[in-house]
Amino acid sequence: MRYLGQIFDQTRKKEPLVQCITNFVTVNDCANMILAAGGTPSMSHVEAEAAEAVRAADALVCNMGAIEDTGAMILAGKEANSLGIPVILDPVAAGGTSLRRETAKKLLKEVHFSVIRGNVSEIRSLAGESVTGKGVDAAALDVITDENLPRAVSRIRQLAEQTGSVIAVSGKTDVISDATRTVLIRNGCAAMSRITGSGCMVTALIGCFCGAAKELPLEAAVTGMTVMGIAGEAAEKRMLKNGTGNATFRNDLIDAVFNFTEKQLMEDMKIEVYKG
Amino acid sequence: MRYLGQIFDQTRKKEPLVQCITNFVTVNDCANMILAAGGTPSMSHVEAEAAEAVRAADALVCNMGAIEDTGAMILAGKEANSLGIPVILDPVAAGGTSLRRETAKKLLKEVHFSVIRGNVSEIRSLAGESVTGKGVDAAALDVITDENLPRAVSRIRQLAEQTGSVIAVSGKTDVISDATRTVLIRNGCAAMSRITGSGCMVTALIGCFCGAAKELPLEAAVTGMTVMGIAGEAAEKRMLKNGTGNATFRNDLIDAVFNFTEKQLMEDMKIEVYKG
Amino acid sequence: MRYLGQIFDQTRKKEPLVQCITNFVTVNDCANMILAAGGTPSMSHVEAEAAEAVRAADALVCNMGAIEDTGAMILAGKEANSLGIPVILDPVAAGGTSLRRETAKKLLKEVHFSVIRGNVSEIRSLAGESVTGKGVDAAALDVITDENLPRAVSRIRQLAEQTGSVIAVSGKTDVISDATRTVLIRNGCAAMSRITGSGCMVTALIGCFCGAAKELPLEAAVTGMTVMGIAGEAAEKRMLKNGTGNATFRNDLIDAVFNFTEKQLMEDMKIEVYKG
Repeated sequence: MRYLGQIFDQTRKKEPLVQCITNFVTVNDCANMILAAGGTPSMSHVEAEAAEAVRAADALVCNMGAIEDTGAMILAGKEANSLGIPVILDPVAAGGTSLRRETAKKLLKEVHFSVIRGNVSEIRSLAGESVTGKGVDAAALDVITDENLPRAVSRIRQLAEQTGSVIAVSGKTDVISDATRTVLIRNGCAAMSRITGSGCMVTALIGCFCGAAKELPLEAAVTGMTVMGIAGEAAEKRMLKNGTGNATFRNDLIDAVFNFTEKQLMEDMKIEVYKG
Repeated sequence: MRYLGQIFDQTRKKEPLVQCITNFVTVNDCANMILAAGGTPSMSHVEAEAAEAVRAADALVCNMGAIEDTGAMILAGKEANSLGIPVILDPVAAGGTSLRRETAKKLLKEVHFSVIRGNVSEIRSLAGESVTGKGVDAAALDVITDENLPRAVSRIRQLAEQTGSVIAVSGKTDVISDATRTVLIRNGCAAMSRITGSGCMVTALIGCFCGAAKELPLEAAVTGMTVMGIAGEAAEKRMLKNGTGNATFRNDLIDAVFNFTEKQLMEDMKIEVYKG
Repeated sequence: MRYLGQIFDQTRKKEPLVQCITNFVTVNDCANMILAAGGTPSMSHVEAEAAEAVRAADALVCNMGAIEDTGAMILAGKEANSLGIPVILDPVAAGGTSLRRETAKKLLKEVHFSVIRGNVSEIRSLAGESVTGKGVDAAALDVITDENLPRAVSRIRQLAEQTGSVIAVSGKTDVISDATRTVLIRNGCAAMSRITGSGCMVTALIGCFCGAAKELPLEAAVTGMTVMGIAGEAAEKRMLKNGTGNATFRNDLIDAVFNFTEKQLMEDMKIEVYKG
């Protein structure tokens, strides 16, 4: 797949301003992750300045963990749409409660998203299926396996077509599709599910890369998820070597993105264009 | 004391979903602490989904640091009560302002708590005594010593009886009572008072253990406070050895819970059933 | 410059209670930074207890990142003013949106600040100049250089005179003035701009030192910015030596303040009283 290395490097040069309307649990991690990748974070989330603030931004990330800030997301999202600024959605726990199901519907109706990144339960919920997840995690039943991959890809493509968005599904195998092209990523590690914010941080990274390559949302999403996966592998190696735990893993993960190189991306990425 | 090791192990197996309505200062630490202990955190805190969200949970933690979310705590707490889901209260700075005194009263009136965990100033305030604390810390005057221990225990038992809750008081010596049985814990370290969130994290841990052993709130509370204390000792040792400070101590503390074993609990716990 | 070492030591002894009304992005870092310096943080931010809570405090920090809590800042700020408790303002992204420009004006009108600490774009905006910044960062055009230093100092002095506040401007060279005396600080490091919260944390530190030396706001501000700069240098050295990144740098920075000594302040400070 072309352009991934260029997008990564371009981001360090351009230092895109990434506006995030995001939740209070992982907001600090998202900001530091954007800085690690070379971007500049802005975490303003109030309705009264949402539309004005986004005008200076190179990308807007709407994280539905901040369910109380949906109004700001819609105002900023519409403004971003009108200015050609890419908008990225993280539909946190989308199927978890009726409030979240309705909020997700409303956001999809009001705003066009360049990329939607979630776990499989969240994405299935957006596609109108009945799921629950477990808190912010995917339900075990929903997990994509080698067996159900073709069916999962078919649904993801359909959702990409319906929404006009790149759909990026995190899991043991990540699946990313813009309806025409579908990519599988097999980077990542188990430790990423032992910290809060892995999902939010990868969405923030995608926002950062979209901010530097707004005409290439599929490639930006693939770059974000691959960088995150490889950084996770490096951080897990450190954790196992040093006998540390999930708190240090979180720091090592952000550090790994800080020290990431194009060479590392080219050498360690495990991506495959899906033919099916 | 029986069952502590089993509760610890059971938590890693069951991966309880712990709903926390908690403050923005330490919410990230609480989520990572729950993950370290083997649980799954959910930090949803809005009234509009509070009652629905808690239905999927194994335990609910209400942290009064989130004073603006009292409405959500009451809705979720009542729902949890009706479903037999244990509810844990952290009465942060309960005696600090009239708003907090009133809020604590209201919460105690509307919701039944399986466990209430606070510092001695907070617990004395719940018992109707006039205290102030220093911000979120206990006032020096309120500290439990060997001399005033019998009187302190008598008050704690009385509050346990009045509320029908296990009362867990953090301090140099932790005191935990369900009115019938009273346990003293002498684990812990001074460094825990040099980070923000020690109290919030131990309450989150208790929520996690209650989620795996809802019929044993006293034992779950003792497990939570003992695991936290021993983990603190291990993290403080690392801090002194490596010449680090409070930020690294915080990470080492969560890491220590991540790597905690039943064996460590059995060997390092300093607990005593109070006879008096 | 006199008193810096004493203020540093006095803070460890007095353990000032520092009330912060601050943003959700860096609130945890600010609390741990205050603890590292020897203070006690209180992060209560709701209007309903703002005035009552501040009565127990030794200093109040108002961080405009919490733009939604302006009401609480004004209530607490007025109460602090009436009680002689120093109030410190961090005008986060002051020139970024019309909401922020108006909020900054309102705060300056309603509350007297002992110290106002911002980057050059934020301070220029407070002085009524038209600036934007880049999110929460200073705009490249606004940066203070050796060439424009005299003009910058003259503006800073003027703002100090207008507001009756010590004006503290962060940058490669920090400039701090109470209109009569102006101090330049040349400590600090590039890595501080690669984490979120450097600005918020230095303002929190200034709040902490003001809480221990309320009659010396200029010296307290200089102490805060110098300690932060030297701690940053130490943390950057560790980062380069250990090959870590911005997340570990953040922890090392707080740890460096935790382990800071008066001796280190006296030996490593690069301050100069400006004659011009």
